[in-house]
Amino acid sequence: MDDVLSELLDRQRILEVVLRYCRGIDRLDMDLVRSAYHPGGIDHHTGFDGKIEDYIPWVERGLGRLGGTMHRIGNHLAEISGDGALVETYGAASHWGEPRDDPTLNFTTGFRYVDWMERRGGLWGIVERIAVREWAHSDAGRWVTLGRPGPSAARSPDDPIYRLRSRLGSPSA
Amino acid sequence: MDDVLSELLDRQRILEVVLRYCRGIDRLDMDLVRSAYHPGGIDHHTGFDGKIEDYIPWVERGLGRLGGTMHRIGNHLAEISGDGALVETYGAASHWGEPRDDPTLNFTTGFRYVDWMERRGGLWGIVERIAVREWAHSDAGRWVTLGRPGPSAARSPDDPIYRLRSRLGSPSA
Amino acid sequence: MDDVLSELLDRQRILEVVLRYCRGIDRLDMDLVRSAYHPGGIDHHTGFDGKIEDYIPWVERGLGRLGGTMHRIGNHLAEISGDGALVETYGAASHWGEPRDDPTLNFTTGFRYVDWMERRGGLWGIVERIAVREWAHSDAGRWVTLGRPGPSAARSPDDPIYRLRSRLGSPSA
Repeated sequence: MDDVLSELLDRQRILEVVLRYCRGIDRLDMDLVRSAYHPGGIDHHTGFDGKIEDYIPWVERGLGRLGGTMHRIGNHLAEISGDGALVETYGAASHWGEPRDDPTLNFTTGFRYVDWMERRGGLWGIVERIAVREWAHSDAGRWVTLGRPGPSAARSPDDPIYRLRSRLGSPSA
Repeated sequence: MDDVLSELLDRQRILEVVLRYCRGIDRLDMDLVRSAYHPGGIDHHTGFDGKIEDYIPWVERGLGRLGGTMHRIGNHLAEISGDGALVETYGAASHWGEPRDDPTLNFTTGFRYVDWMERRGGLWGIVERIAVREWAHSDAGRWVTLGRPGPSAARSPDDPIYRLRSRLGSPSA
Repeated sequence: MDDVLSELLDRQRILEVVLRYCRGIDRLDMDLVRSAYHPGGIDHHTGFDGKIEDYIPWVERGLGRLGGTMHRIGNHLAEISGDGALVETYGAASHWGEPRDDPTLNFTTGFRYVDWMERRGGLWGIVERIAVREWAHSDAGRWVTLGRPGPSAARSPDDPIYRLRSRLGSPSA
């Protein structure tokens, strides 16, 4: 049964790597993005091909041109072999910005992250990522204002996910 | 290893709270929605701010104006500390209704549920939810009829998920 | 605690059934699709009603008319009772093809897979699936070219998820 428990824990930690990446990108928390990769990790992205150390400033510049992003992931399947794992994660990424009728700022992409991860020093991280773009659809002209106020997001420590963190004493994850 | 197993079980039960909420909303099962919150739980929503006991009739009225909804969740990350947890869940909610060219009835929203959950009497539930709206896109005029019949949904016990339940003897969850 | 571990493992294996189905459909790997069902399994689909053995060639013909598909799943909730499970999985499926302004080739559907699964010979598989279509939206005219090169997908062993598999010695899953 220990093998089963180890497998399930590995799966959880591997999933968390991808979740940290997405949160980091969407909240502009580049340290969190970086934490998803091992040092020297390689990223193959639409428009970028190289090391994580160069990917970080490149993606940060791109994100800075946008008003916000949301990287929603779905299907996540890890094939684990010892300290290595082949991990596929499906997702759709919403991008927005002003003016809202500009399709180069307002669009949604379908993607798959194909990650080669390794466990080093007990921690799973990305060694090589192939970010496959499946489709890109304009959202220009689709924005609707439903005229009701409500909680809003921030790409800063002012976002609710950070503001509520103080309630955690010593987080387990 | 017991700690690991407890963590994984907590994560599963916390995820189920969010899943029950979504199913309840989409099937108009208000008891299921309510079961996701502890009594007196607070909900901050687009257009609503208050206790779950008041949220239920408010959201039920809004849902009644629509033909249907689908709250698809993705990224789900719980940070657990003892009997408390900070839980972020990404999602996209499709809304539809007649006439189908009305953008106030036919739209999709991107959201994040930022939940403070607690375990009380052994059960995890929402104590405070901040439902952050990220974007809202019109689906008016996008409907296509592909001309093929097939299974359909219901917001009642006639939905397939309820009809098949009789096959379960004594469900474990 | 053994019961808890068994439950969590069952949940993982049940989820993998759905993940294998989606990957098989999107990569045109019909053996993988078939592996999600027990022999004689029944599928109720938009435009199809019958056994998996007949569903496979039917769906393969339909997929062949498209340039690609992406079946992104989200909410996944299994209610397990012994060797049976009632499993609901939410998803959105993107379809595309040429010409890209044809709404019968370029559209996204919202669906729920309502599956009755059973464990036979230690393996979970679908015995009956009701694929409920919730909505269908045209993506015709929404395609944007963002003018940057990057990794692309294939519906063949050339896809990155297959190319990287050689790095796995003996995969655990």
